[in-house]
Amino acid sequence: MRGAVIHAPGDVRFEERDDPEIIHPTDAVIRTVATCVCGSDLWPYRGAEPIGDPHPMGHEYVGIVEEVGDEVANVKPGQFVVGSFATSDNTCANCRNGWQSNCLHREFMSTCQADHIRIPNAHGTLVATDGHPDAAFVPSLLAVSDVMGTGWYAALAAEVKPGSTAVVVGDGAVGLCGVIAARELGAERIIAMSRHTSRQNLALAFGATDIVSERGDEGIARVKDLTGGIGADSVLECVGNPESMHQALHSARPGGNVGFVGVPHEVSLDGQELFFSHVGVRGGPAPVRRYLPDLIDRVLSGRINPGKVFDLTLPLDQVAEGYQAMDERRAIKALLKP
Amino acid sequence: MRGAVIHAPGDVRFEERDDPEIIHPTDAVIRTVATCVCGSDLWPYRGAEPIGDPHPMGHEYVGIVEEVGDEVANVKPGQFVVGSFATSDNTCANCRNGWQSNCLHREFMSTCQADHIRIPNAHGTLVATDGHPDAAFVPSLLAVSDVMGTGWYAALAAEVKPGSTAVVVGDGAVGLCGVIAARELGAERIIAMSRHTSRQNLALAFGATDIVSERGDEGIARVKDLTGGIGADSVLECVGNPESMHQALHSARPGGNVGFVGVPHEVSLDGQELFFSHVGVRGGPAPVRRYLPDLIDRVLSGRINPGKVFDLTLPLDQVAEGYQAMDERRAIKALLKP
Repeated sequence: MRGAVIHAPGDVRFEERDDPEIIHPTDAVIRTVATCVCGSDLWPYRGAEPIGDPHPMGHEYVGIVEEVGDEVANVKPGQFVVGSFATSDNTCANCRNGWQSNCLHREFMSTCQADHIRIPNAHGTLVATDGHPDAAFVPSLLAVSDVMGTGWYAALAAEVKPGSTAVVVGDGAVGLCGVIAARELGAERIIAMSRHTSRQNLALAFGATDIVSERGDEGIARVKDLTGGIGADSVLECVGNPESMHQALHSARPGGNVGFVGVPHEVSLDGQELFFSHVGVRGGPAPVRRYLPDLIDRVLSGRINPGKVFDLTLPLDQVAEGYQAMDERRAIKALLKP
Repeated sequence: MRGAVIHAPGDVRFEERDDPEIIHPTDAVIRTVATCVCGSDLWPYRGAEPIGDPHPMGHEYVGIVEEVGDEVANVKPGQFVVGSFATSDNTCANCRNGWQSNCLHREFMSTCQADHIRIPNAHGTLVATDGHPDAAFVPSLLAVSDVMGTGWYAALAAEVKPGSTAVVVGDGAVGLCGVIAARELGAERIIAMSRHTSRQNLALAFGATDIVSERGDEGIARVKDLTGGIGADSVLECVGNPESMHQALHSARPGGNVGFVGVPHEVSLDGQELFFSHVGVRGGPAPVRRYLPDLIDRVLSGRINPGKVFDLTLPLDQVAEGYQAMDERRAIKALLKP
C-alpha cells in the first residue's frame, strides 16, 4: 500500500509502505475513506520538532473496516467507522473516568495518511455509523476524529455553560471547531481572535458573535472591552505557544477557565500569576472517544458541519501539496482522498 | 492602641500604634476578640519575602463592632463579627461571580494583630453572628476568617465530590482545615501527607483516612499505591513551594484536579507536563466571604471544629513568641487574645 513519509523538514513523500496487518487480537485494519493534514503535523514539517528517521505521518481518519482481530467485537468488516487520534481500550481506570486519551494502553495514531491503516485497541477506539453515511458527511465525520473532538474538549475544559462568554484563541481548524463547540454548549457571546478574513468568516458562520483581530496587550484590552472590563468566563486556547497562552490567561475573568488544547511548545505558567488570577486551567489531548457517539449524532443530524474547515481537497498522492498549502496558510486544512 | 509591628526577619514587636479610625464611609472599626499568626506571616519573618519599612502584621480576626461608617448597613456596633482576610464590596462583577477575594475594591487585611482594627469595605466583608457566641466557638470562628475558609476553597478548587479520593499536601493549619473540608464535601478517602505525629493525629481526628509520611517520588508512589495506581481525584496543595506543587500535580490522577492555596514562591508549571497530565488546576486567595455564612453555621452547629488547629494561646502582647513557636514548629498555629 502507499502512504506519506516525512524525511526532513519540508520533505513529505508519498511512498510504498508495508501493508498493515493484524498484530494484536484487539487490532483492526481499515481501508481509508478520508484522512487529512493536522496543524500539529506542521511542527515537524517546519523543523520545530525533531524528525529522526523517516516515518509515516497522520492521525485523523475515517474508513471501512477490512479485518478485525479475535477480540474486536464492536465493529465488523464492511462497517464505516470513526476513531480517535488516541487509541484506548475503553475499559481501564482512566477510560472509565472519561479520559480515554490517557488510557493505560494508549497508542497515538501516526500512520493515517495512507490508503490502509492498522488501528490498535480497535475494540475501544472505533465507533461504527448506522450504515454508510452519505459522502457529504465524510468531511465532518473526519473532523470529529480530531479537530472537532478537540474543539469540543477545549470548550468543556474551559467550562463553557449556557449564557456564558467565550473567547477562542487561534483560528486554525481546532479553534474554528471550538467556536462550534462553544455555540453548541450555549455560550451567548463567542469572541473569535483572528486576523484572516476567510477564517473570520468561517468563525462567524460557525457562531462567533465578535471578531478580535488585535493580539497581545491590545487583543487582551479588546476582549476586556467586550466583557464588562473583567474578561471572559471561558477561554479556549487552540495554539500552544507562549504568546497564545498569555493571551488566553489574560482574557479570562477572575475565576474563569482556560481550556488549552494546542500542544504546548516552550510554555510555562507562573505559579504566582496563576494564583492571583483565580483562573482554572485544564488541557491535554482531547478524550475524543468519550464524545464520539454524541458528535457523530450531531453531524448526521445536520446540527453541526465542522467539515467546512476543509477548504482544500486533494488526492492522497498529493499529500505533500497539502502540507505545503497549510504551511503557507493557503489552506486552513487539507482533506486527502485515497 | 497596641499591635504587632515587624521590623526585620525574626523581629516582631508589640508596640503603640495609631488608633484606627473610620476613613471611608464603608469602613468599620472593631475591637479584636481574637487574632492569630498565619503560616504566610512566616515568609517575611523568615526573610523569604522583603519587609521594607517596619509595618503592622496580621490578617485574621473576629471582634466586636465599635463604630461603622455611614454606608455600612449590614452590621452595627456591639455585634460579634467574622470577616475575611481579603475585603470586598460584595457587589462588583467579580464579587457577583463569587470571587470576593478578587473584588475590584479589594484590600488585603494587614493590621489585625492588634487590639483594634479598621476594616475597609466592612459592608461587604463582615458577617455578624446571631448574638455573641460562646467563648468555646471563638477559635473556630477565627479559623473561618482564613485557614478554614482557605481549606474549604482548596477542596472546592480541587473539585472534591462525594465518594471521591482526596490528597492533602501540607500539614499546616490550612492543610488540616482542608482535611475537614474534604470530609464535609463527602470524600471517601482522605490521604494526609504529614511527617509530624501531632499533626498526623489532628488530621486523623479531622477525618483523614490515611497518612503518608514519605515525600517526593516516594510520597507520590505511596499515593498511587493507595489510589488504584493512577492517583487521586482531588489534591489540595496547601504549601506553595516547588516541591509541594510537584507532589500535588503528580498525586492527581489523569483528569483529576489540584486546588492550590499556598501562595506560590518560585513555582512554575511546565505547560507540556500539565497538558499530558490532563490535570486541572485552580488556585488563589480563597473567596472566604462566599463561604462565611455556611462555615459559621457549620461551626455554631458543632459540625466542624477547626479551632483545634490552635495549639497555642497567648496574650496578644506575646505575639513575638507566637511567631517564634510557629517558626520552630513548636506550634501549629498561635491564637492571640488582647
